[in-house]
Amino acid sequence: MAQNNSGGTPLTLLGLGAMGTALARAWLAAGHPLTVWNRTAARTEPLAAEGAAVAGTAAGAVAANGLVLTCLLDDASVREALADADLDGRDLVNLTTSTPGQARALAEWAGQRGARFLDAGIMAVPRMIGVPDSGGYVFYSGSRELFDAHRDTLAVPADTRYVGSDPGFAALHDVALLSAMTGMFSGVAHAFALLRREEIPPKEFAPLVEGWLTGMAPYVHLMAAQLGSGDYVTGTESNLAMMVAANATLLDTAREQGVSPELLTPYLELMARRLADGHGAESDTGVVDLLLH
Amino acid sequence: MAQNNSGGTPLTLLGLGAMGTALARAWLAAGHPLTVWNRTAARTEPLAAEGAAVAGTAAGAVAANGLVLTCLLDDASVREALADADLDGRDLVNLTTSTPGQARALAEWAGQRGARFLDAGIMAVPRMIGVPDSGGYVFYSGSRELFDAHRDTLAVPADTRYVGSDPGFAALHDVALLSAMTGMFSGVAHAFALLRREEIPPKEFAPLVEGWLTGMAPYVHLMAAQLGSGDYVTGTESNLAMMVAANATLLDTAREQGVSPELLTPYLELMARRLADGHGAESDTGVVDLLLH
Ligand SMILES: NC(=O)c1ccc[n+]([C@@H]2O[C@H](COP(=O)([O-])OP(=O)(O)OC[C@H]3O[C@@H](n4cnc5c(N)ncnc54)[C@H](OP(=O)(O)O)[C@@H]3O)[C@@H](O)[C@H]2O)c1
Ligand SMILES: NC(=O)c1ccc[n+]([C@@H]2O[C@H](COP(=O)([O-])OP(=O)(O)OC[C@H]3O[C@@H](n4cnc5c(N)ncnc54)[C@H](OP(=O)(O)O)[C@@H]3O)[C@@H](O)[C@H]2O)c1
Repeated sequence: MAQNNSGGTPLTLLGLGAMGTALARAWLAAGHPLTVWNRTAARTEPLAAEGAAVAGTAAGAVAANGLVLTCLLDDASVREALADADLDGRDLVNLTTSTPGQARALAEWAGQRGARFLDAGIMAVPRMIGVPDSGGYVFYSGSRELFDAHRDTLAVPADTRYVGSDPGFAALHDVALLSAMTGMFSGVAHAFALLRREEIPPKEFAPLVEGWLTGMAPYVHLMAAQLGSGDYVTGTESNLAMMVAANATLLDTAREQGVSPELLTPYLELMARRLADGHGAESDTGVVDLLLH
Repeated sequence: MAQNNSGGTPLTLLGLGAMGTALARAWLAAGHPLTVWNRTAARTEPLAAEGAAVAGTAAGAVAANGLVLTCLLDDASVREALADADLDGRDLVNLTTSTPGQARALAEWAGQRGARFLDAGIMAVPRMIGVPDSGGYVFYSGSRELFDAHRDTLAVPADTRYVGSDPGFAALHDVALLSAMTGMFSGVAHAFALLRREEIPPKEFAPLVEGWLTGMAPYVHLMAAQLGSGDYVTGTESNLAMMVAANATLLDTAREQGVSPELLTPYLELMARRLADGHGAESDTGVVDLLLH
């Protein structure tokens, strides 16, 4: 496909869900000639109106440009979409959330087909895409050459963070952060449930939750320091014995408020196990060790 | 007990654990005559050296001043410590983490013994106590008269937030925020476990976790708005169908990394249940409804 006059690197994007559409708009806005494909063709229409070229097949979209990005539901959908594409000489960047193992396998598969490969994990929601200083960014790992060659293009939708040549590392960082966030929102869901039958409007409570979680998030540094040193006592201000007593209060409160404790119990049980093992003067850092098998 | 010359309201504090000791130091530093008691007497020694009067029994400590505060392990320890005390005419403030029901019962019990009562929930860790602008604060609920009479004294260790005359409300707010935080740290523990066997030092990863959780915490406002309106679709940028696909990636990653998924599964199962019930276009707000019985 001929490059147009705008000067930006031309590229292909497979996938126009909520995230793919936001990415497409960012590259179009920055003047990159863009070819798009989506399984459900109707989703390409608004992008076509905004200047994107539309390919009828994924293979056709891949053929259109040297730089090809995928932003699909999951690894299986990436495999399906790329099955018939000729990747020889392409630079493939996978922005789909994957496991480290899936990313490594895709890197190998792409390499066998003559493509350079970079896996990515998007740490942003769609409305942060293309917004400077949104706080969003994207982890990349795999081919350093590919990353260096397309650094500016990749930086259009969000800041970039290259985390190593192991193609699984972007996914590992991504999934670790998503897992931490999942825990946070499970706690938030429980908190809102506790207030659901009281005359406390969720909108009044929300700023308190945000403030408290933001204020306590820096405790990850204590956990990190303790994991690094192996000493889980030094620096502890909230000891496990006290926390386990408070945990009983959390569970009793759930019962009083008619809320299932199911989102809390697994962590509380691991804390109780550490306490029973004689670690009452430690923080809860030791729970990390109990998760590994 | 005679008031000394410093001018601050004299007060009694029962409990010199990590939190009680921090509170005691804040009042002493602000010039309040302070009487302390602790079950294990040795813990009173440093405070005595800093100017606190030490009572040999909890009842003696209560007799010493009109304003009496408790900061003990849990509700049972408060009941035990106060069992023999004469509360008639006292102002009792309970800073111990309790359930709303325990706080209401204690309020009634104290009222029957002739005391005004205020329950409290401390939203701070010890090193935030007595530090201006630390971000820490204390919820209070119960007797408005008591709160107004001692507002300045109560504000010495941390900012105050009166949340209503229902003595259970401070505890409810407290426990809801502690529960949200518990979820957050369960997610953080899982995240650190995922990286435990890789060459990614916890100290390098910690700032990423802090940044991501802080960046995503404002999503509590979307959850609150959706809970308020009952419409869980409007405003959704990360739909449940996509999230459930990503959840499979989180579980597969845990398996790949040899990490137990037990801290994640309860929330993921509730999300899957909402999806199966036909709510794929919603956010995960509907999980809150599934927790109520
Ligand atoms: N939204 C976010 O907040 C967010 C944040 C960070 C990362 N991500 C990641 O970004 C990726 C896309 O998310 P999204 O929010 O855009 O999801 P979405 O709105 O649900 O869109 C899913 C996309 O995948 C396509 N797809 C699904 N199965 C397919 C298959 N078998 N073959 C080909 N295409 C298939 C869909 O095509 P149809 O239109 O034909 O269904 C659609 O383009 C996911 O990996 C997600 O984890 C999303
Ligand atoms: N530390 C924090 O980060 C934090 C934050 C917010 C709220 N809080 C709350 O503050 C309260 C105190 O926490 P902490 O950190 O100070 O705990 P801690 O360091 O473990 O101290 C516990 C205190 O309770 C006393 N105690 C325990 N059982 C007792 C009993 N049966 N009778 C009389 N005294 C008893 C202990 O006395 P001995 O010295 O004799 O054992 C000690 O003074 C708890 O309700 C906690 O939830 C703590």
